[in-house]
Amino acid sequence: MSNFLSKINDARDLHEMSVADLELVADEIRETLCNLLSKRAAHFASNLGVVELTLALHSTFDFLSDRLIWDTGHQIYPQKLVTGRYHQFDTIRTRGGLMGYPNPEESDYDLFVTGHAGASVSTAVGLRSGDDLMGRDNYTVAVIGDGAFPSGVVYEAINNASELKSKMLVVLNDNEMSICPRVGGVAHYLDKLRSNPIYSGVKNEVVNMLNKVPLLGDPTERMLFQIKEGVKAGLHGGMMFEDFGFKYFGPIDGHNIGLVKKYLKMVREIDGPVLLHVMTNKGHGYKPAAEDPVYFHTPPAFERSEEGIPVPLTKSSSKAFTNHAADAIGDQMRHNERVTVITAAMCQGNKLEAVREEFPDRFFDVGICEAHAVAFAAGQCKVGMRPIVDIYSTFLQRSFDHIFQEVCLQKLPVTFMLDRGGLTADDGPTHHGTFDYGYMRLFPNMVVMAPGDANDIGAMLDFSLSHDTACSIRYPKLNATEVDRELQPIELGKSETLREGSDGVIVCAGIQLVDCLAAAEKLAQIGINVGVVNARFVKPIDRDMVRDAIENHDFVVTVEEAMLHGGFGSAFLEAANDMRLDARKVHRIGIPDLFVPHGDRAGLLADLKLDVDGIVETCRNASGAAVDSGIESVG
Amino acid sequence: MSNFLSKINDARDLHEMSVADLELVADEIRETLCNLLSKRAAHFASNLGVVELTLALHSTFDFLSDRLIWDTGHQIYPQKLVTGRYHQFDTIRTRGGLMGYPNPEESDYDLFVTGHAGASVSTAVGLRSGDDLMGRDNYTVAVIGDGAFPSGVVYEAINNASELKSKMLVVLNDNEMSICPRVGGVAHYLDKLRSNPIYSGVKNEVVNMLNKVPLLGDPTERMLFQIKEGVKAGLHGGMMFEDFGFKYFGPIDGHNIGLVKKYLKMVREIDGPVLLHVMTNKGHGYKPAAEDPVYFHTPPAFERSEEGIPVPLTKSSSKAFTNHAADAIGDQMRHNERVTVITAAMCQGNKLEAVREEFPDRFFDVGICEAHAVAFAAGQCKVGMRPIVDIYSTFLQRSFDHIFQEVCLQKLPVTFMLDRGGLTADDGPTHHGTFDYGYMRLFPNMVVMAPGDANDIGAMLDFSLSHDTACSIRYPKLNATEVDRELQPIELGKSETLREGSDGVIVCAGIQLVDCLAAAEKLAQIGINVGVVNARFVKPIDRDMVRDAIENHDFVVTVEEAMLHGGFGSAFLEAANDMRLDARKVHRIGIPDLFVPHGDRAGLLADLKLDVDGIVETCRNASGAAVDSGIESVG
Repeated sequence: MSNFLSKINDARDLHEMSVADLELVADEIRETLCNLLSKRAAHFASNLGVVELTLALHSTFDFLSDRLIWDTGHQIYPQKLVTGRYHQFDTIRTRGGLMGYPNPEESDYDLFVTGHAGASVSTAVGLRSGDDLMGRDNYTVAVIGDGAFPSGVVYEAINNASELKSKMLVVLNDNEMSICPRVGGVAHYLDKLRSNPIYSGVKNEVVNMLNKVPLLGDPTERMLFQIKEGVKAGLHGGMMFEDFGFKYFGPIDGHNIGLVKKYLKMVREIDGPVLLHVMTNKGHGYKPAAEDPVYFHTPPAFERSEEGIPVPLTKSSSKAFTNHAADAIGDQMRHNERVTVITAAMCQGNKLEAVREEFPDRFFDVGICEAHAVAFAAGQCKVGMRPIVDIYSTFLQRSFDHIFQEVCLQKLPVTFMLDRGGLTADDGPTHHGTFDYGYMRLFPNMVVMAPGDANDIGAMLDFSLSHDTACSIRYPKLNATEVDRELQPIELGKSETLREGSDGVIVCAGIQLVDCLAAAEKLAQIGINVGVVNARFVKPIDRDMVRDAIENHDFVVTVEEAMLHGGFGSAFLEAANDMRLDARKVHRIGIPDLFVPHGDRAGLLADLKLDVDGIVETCRNASGAAVDSGIESVG
Repeated sequence: MSNFLSKINDARDLHEMSVADLELVADEIRETLCNLLSKRAAHFASNLGVVELTLALHSTFDFLSDRLIWDTGHQIYPQKLVTGRYHQFDTIRTRGGLMGYPNPEESDYDLFVTGHAGASVSTAVGLRSGDDLMGRDNYTVAVIGDGAFPSGVVYEAINNASELKSKMLVVLNDNEMSICPRVGGVAHYLDKLRSNPIYSGVKNEVVNMLNKVPLLGDPTERMLFQIKEGVKAGLHGGMMFEDFGFKYFGPIDGHNIGLVKKYLKMVREIDGPVLLHVMTNKGHGYKPAAEDPVYFHTPPAFERSEEGIPVPLTKSSSKAFTNHAADAIGDQMRHNERVTVITAAMCQGNKLEAVREEFPDRFFDVGICEAHAVAFAAGQCKVGMRPIVDIYSTFLQRSFDHIFQEVCLQKLPVTFMLDRGGLTADDGPTHHGTFDYGYMRLFPNMVVMAPGDANDIGAMLDFSLSHDTACSIRYPKLNATEVDRELQPIELGKSETLREGSDGVIVCAGIQLVDCLAAAEKLAQIGINVGVVNARFVKPIDRDMVRDAIENHDFVVTVEEAMLHGGFGSAFLEAANDMRLDARKVHRIGIPDLFVPHGDRAGLLADLKLDVDGIVETCRNASGAAVDSGIESVG
């Protein structure tokens, strides 16, 4: 193995390297990625897929003056390795270490923190427009995967780019995958392009042709080349992009560094927006990953056997909240043939494979198109179906307006399952689902539920599917917790008291419930007797519970893994205010007005005082404050 | 003039009518629309444009079993006139009268309340999918304008429709307009299609060909016809839609009822999704409107002179908040060449024509693409520009996720001007901007400002453009109010006290400020002495003001034209709670948890107790409650 990588301090170091040497760097990057996976779970297959593309880009452009945006961002690892972060690389996705997505705080090469798919072309058009206005003669590139490509905002951006006639490049990184195999009309169109003889059989011819063209030669020859390319595109594909006002080139082999570099040099000279269609393989260069890119999207840590076969280091045998949710969905579909489930490219993440297999006609993966997913569900619901929209909390933010107009305003009983509610730990701020209590409770005709443990999920789904308005159920990316108790049925706006306490009461909205019970135990040992309530409903909040909590206790602590602004504690204060209750004894724990970084969950919770110790501490302080101030129970 | 319309009680009555009679109905509808405009402002040009299309659709299909969705919905008037609502038609857009958009509560022919553009194709795909699962043999149609067509969700829906192979029709109603002239690559593509000889010169030939084809004849002939159409489309255009998996027909003349009906009958037989491209003229049949469809989108009430020329009945000479905002934007652009302004097809609505003319290079109309608008602004901002995103409050909901990821998470100082904040009166729930305080204050790095009067707007914009995080400024669709005072400069998180009062204090977030001052006058007359505070900041809220309000007054009334859930009053309670202040004396007035209907502003405000009388009443009750309960000032 060569030893370039440890000496590359800046991507500019790549500019003078030969293609042969860049290929050696590619091997080193791949080895580094495989070594990382022997340490911890991380995005993997997507990064293996863009090693050559990254090197071609950074060896052709200077992205300290030119601009590069990686859509979705989880394929940023090779870039981190060649932009001065090689020596910190093994800290990636750990607390205080490198972020698993682009991060401007780490490097000027990372322009935007990305994580949600689709916006790269829009931001690139904006960058181009801004640089034009500032009089800068630089170049702008967005790299977007075919999985993200159907996101509506991409189409809006392409529409605008052609209007502005921006001189810029969109690299369509086509690996025939979203996280799950991709779907939809755009995918079929790309399939057609890929069947293009230029790509499928005559690749060498193109390489030869390119070799013959003096790329930066005189304008006439260059124009001739462009005309040829234009004819080729016209005959073989890409017309759709040309119709949008883009010049289209490709598809080309994205693992051929020399070829990609030649195209990049050529398109840089073209006026107006260009789309370069590059074919890559997710997991390229590591056979197990190339063969199963879905598993290897974010695999658990593994070691390689002598044959190179991955052996998982950690076993994830325990059942996650997500599994409980998927099982509950399957149960409902088994008993009610009006129930459908709609996911946005997260079949695997949402553990819906079994449901897809059992009910192929009622399972809908619409791709990374969350806005459509919700309006589509509304349509189904209108004619009598009971759709379940199963989308990560943070990605459902894309559907905000459709939750408003297509669902709540029409009073349609669509069910929302919000996976990845709360902190997602390693992924960081683009993936934490911490705004959902706040945004879901804004709209009339929406019931907002917060399961206290895994057993609540099935019961809440059951409630939801017989309720006459929209409902949302939010749970985290965690191994499931189950609170040992006789499960009380879900009743609209009713909380569940799990423990009585004469001094104070902890009211928990969500899966901190086990921690609240543990905190109550600890408090009992120091003579503070607190009750624990499983709020279950963020909206409508249980007003009787609010009254009882305030009137019959010296202090109340609300707990939520969500933003304090507008969240459950805020709803608690609103209810108290409506009932003219003195809320001074209410103490709210949750996420303050900041973006929580990535890191291990325990550490993040400790920082936020959202762990058992934090809850104990808040209760102790609240108890002391109640005694000090004389604000004691009036009940 | 014929007299069909008054006797059409149900669209089924159209089924047996001849094309000649349908044309007479079209004339009657047009006359009715013109008469309405002599009464009040209403959507006009768009309705004139779809008269024939509406009649062709309803005379061909039975939309009590088939499904019809009108995108955006302001072109629903002809449908209302032929579905049993002719006799109530002159109540449209009045309180308790017909809604100016589709409304399922009025008629089973109106499936969804629409108003926000773009979601029709998604809901139609959902309806089709649901009906398929329910085993219904009906047909599904979405009608969408070319202005709405670039909305990202349309592309997401088309992508999914072709995947599902849904048998359905999307009618692209192409009038070469959004509300403003439309923009972007899609528009240029449609221009190309329109230059198609079939549409531009050889129309009669198509009509003849269609007349010769036995439309419901034997399958071979039908197939032959379809092949011919396919070849035509392939030669002349529509390939982009075919690439997406749609069969494309058109463009055809949308004012030719007979022609449109023939195409509708034909496409109904085709498997899979079909796009029928129909050309119409906004304002068709009424010359002044056809010549100036932008003015006649929602013109003020007018009467016709003998020559048919419209004479405005109401003069809108007074300056609106929107004018103040546009003037302030112009001022900033004049003094700072880094300032840009971005609108989403609302150049006219936002009164930005003068700015567009003066600064064409820094004015960006991205079309009805709110998601892109925000990510585009973020890109500009990243490289040093100071973009102002000027979008209606309710439409900005489309950008929720991009405000989160592309702006706040990156800590980019984008300025948001939220026009149409609060109630929009006649337009109703799809257009009221009542969720913005709630959703804007969820995100870290966002300052949320609420001008108390027109003079605050310029000062806040000035503040915003020198502040280092994103800011939002929200104002209503109203004639501007100006509070007579020496304008205090805008300081982050600082409110402005306009009147001192020893008994209570009214804290106003927004343009109710003049009403609060009027209420204070009235209260003074009955011996209740209240202060008035212009909150100015919803976030960060002025904590000193909160403390002073609670500690030094017997009661506090917060006023906002926004949802109480998560709104300004809620922020007030959060701040009080953080400072351990007793908030029992705080009374919140705003919009409760319901969708406010359309109607005259005064009536709506009275219902919500958000008018002067309502504020007086709340203060009186609060004052009495304070006396009764002994909760008086502790200061």
